[in-house]
Amino acid sequence: MSTSPNTRVLTGITTTGTPHLGNYVGAIKPAIEASQDPNVQSFYFLADYHALIKCQDPKRVQQSRLEIAATWLALGLDTDNAIFYRQSDILEIPELAWMLSCVCSKGLMNRAHAYKASVAENEQAGNQDADKGITMGLFGYPVLMAADILMFNANRVPVGRDQIQHIEMARDIAGRFNHLYKGEYFTLPEAAVDEKVEVLGGLDGRKMSKSYNNTIPLFVPEKKLQKLVRKIKTNSLEPGEPKDPDSCTLYQIYSAFAGADDTAAMRERYAEGIGWGDAKNAVFEHLNAHLSEPRERYNALMEDPGHIETVLQQGAERAREEAAVTMDKLRSAIGLGRFV
Amino acid sequence: MSTSPNTRVLTGITTTGTPHLGNYVGAIKPAIEASQDPNVQSFYFLADYHALIKCQDPKRVQQSRLEIAATWLALGLDTDNAIFYRQSDILEIPELAWMLSCVCSKGLMNRAHAYKASVAENEQAGNQDADKGITMGLFGYPVLMAADILMFNANRVPVGRDQIQHIEMARDIAGRFNHLYKGEYFTLPEAAVDEKVEVLGGLDGRKMSKSYNNTIPLFVPEKKLQKLVRKIKTNSLEPGEPKDPDSCTLYQIYSAFAGADDTAAMRERYAEGIGWGDAKNAVFEHLNAHLSEPRERYNALMEDPGHIETVLQQGAERAREEAAVTMDKLRSAIGLGRFV
Repeated sequence: MSTSPNTRVLTGITTTGTPHLGNYVGAIKPAIEASQDPNVQSFYFLADYHALIKCQDPKRVQQSRLEIAATWLALGLDTDNAIFYRQSDILEIPELAWMLSCVCSKGLMNRAHAYKASVAENEQAGNQDADKGITMGLFGYPVLMAADILMFNANRVPVGRDQIQHIEMARDIAGRFNHLYKGEYFTLPEAAVDEKVEVLGGLDGRKMSKSYNNTIPLFVPEKKLQKLVRKIKTNSLEPGEPKDPDSCTLYQIYSAFAGADDTAAMRERYAEGIGWGDAKNAVFEHLNAHLSEPRERYNALMEDPGHIETVLQQGAERAREEAAVTMDKLRSAIGLGRFV
Repeated sequence: MSTSPNTRVLTGITTTGTPHLGNYVGAIKPAIEASQDPNVQSFYFLADYHALIKCQDPKRVQQSRLEIAATWLALGLDTDNAIFYRQSDILEIPELAWMLSCVCSKGLMNRAHAYKASVAENEQAGNQDADKGITMGLFGYPVLMAADILMFNANRVPVGRDQIQHIEMARDIAGRFNHLYKGEYFTLPEAAVDEKVEVLGGLDGRKMSKSYNNTIPLFVPEKKLQKLVRKIKTNSLEPGEPKDPDSCTLYQIYSAFAGADDTAAMRERYAEGIGWGDAKNAVFEHLNAHLSEPRERYNALMEDPGHIETVLQQGAERAREEAAVTMDKLRSAIGLGRFV
């Protein structure tokens, strides 16, 4: 999708886990690169209100917020250019969610994929109550997500395929609000689905994912990184036997971090029958070389949460300046303006 | 119900109409009297976020908020003692509503009377979509109401019978939150249902209500008040014929405003066969004597919206001081606290 000086890109980051290599390759790296486009105003936020839906362990939510903020900063997110904030520092967002909920039909939420999947699970399990275990947070979160997006008039929201429906819902709600209150209050956002998103394999060869418990955290200490790389599942081919790089998680991880030349050279070594031990050493060395500098920055940041707090507060201030303008207009539009 | 120095009473005032005699007698007068109890910390708020559910006419919402604030102030609400604010000035309220929605089961809302009534209407009308015309605001507003109450740890909420379920829901949500996050974060509120609430008849003899279009607004000009009192429906008994005060709207309105002596004297005149014209004049004179001073204050206030704004901002400041303490605790409890 092309960009123009008015392009506003908004990215939410879930805050219930520790960033791993798969997050980095699939999401963080391309997002940080995209933020350097001078034609774009980027918004990145820790989606910590959303985290409450899935996680009622306060320590995990708190730790994850800190780790994720430190990760993005360590990897060079340009916070002078991009606006980087915690969702929960912008009280106008739940306020806007309430306003939007008054124009959003319940029927729209009834059709949300995530909600329908939960209902289907209950029905399959033979639960009498199809809504068993479903909270109002889970049911209504597409409205909160619409508020996240519409607050900043983002016109482009990079998402996975499973999130396209939420962007459509945000458009639907925005259109309904514009219609009811007779004005162009909101920009209609568009989903930007990157079809080429790189999906990294995990320790067991399946997609690297917190839910599979097969991840390599991005900034584990060097020794631990080495240990984890050695655990990556390989086949039983002996040294000297030619190996297929294209079906190999190890190779895939290597190529996600290495340049074209190094990748071609590694391909060659696979054909020549590199032993798995040597291959793992090479991957570890390469990863470690790539990660050791940001890892140092990450560790320093994790030891200085006050600095992270300050950076996020500064981001929140910029976000709230934007939000204040939007909310002033909206309050007047719906009859909640000041009396003078 | 008895009061103690720790009693906190919270009253929401809907902001979609113009206050009328029925509102005054049934709600405003007893609330203002109750606010003078030195053993009580009262909270009164204009429930303008709730108004958005029912009313998408911004002018009407804005005008109603102004009229209602002016009415309560003109009638002598002691804003030094009571905390008087607009709901929409407290952004922490929708924020808390979001937090609560993440612990509130959807099933609880499925059972709300107002929602069920709307579904039943759709079914009776033969609508294929049982949720037709129902917004997320209507569906979820008991969660917002729980936030209104729990934010200030109100232990007593004066409500009509139709609202008891909402207080039960607030208790339920509070208990669930306390349980999940292992602490006594919220006081469980109790509904205070006044069984003796006076229901005033309107121009046509039915209950005075905006929906019946039979109201006498509280602060209409003198001439208009006289005209409206003359329109109150009476029977066809002639002057000289004895009349039954107990089935008479006119007498009921009179007695709601007059002291015991005047009321007894008017009873006597009914027995003696007072003519309807004379009775209407007496009621008008009495009402007008009672209302002329607050009406003058009301008119002066309506011409000085800046003053009302200031008073409400001061109330909001006090309310937000309270809210800040609550929200600090809650944010830490759920993992959304600051990093330092």
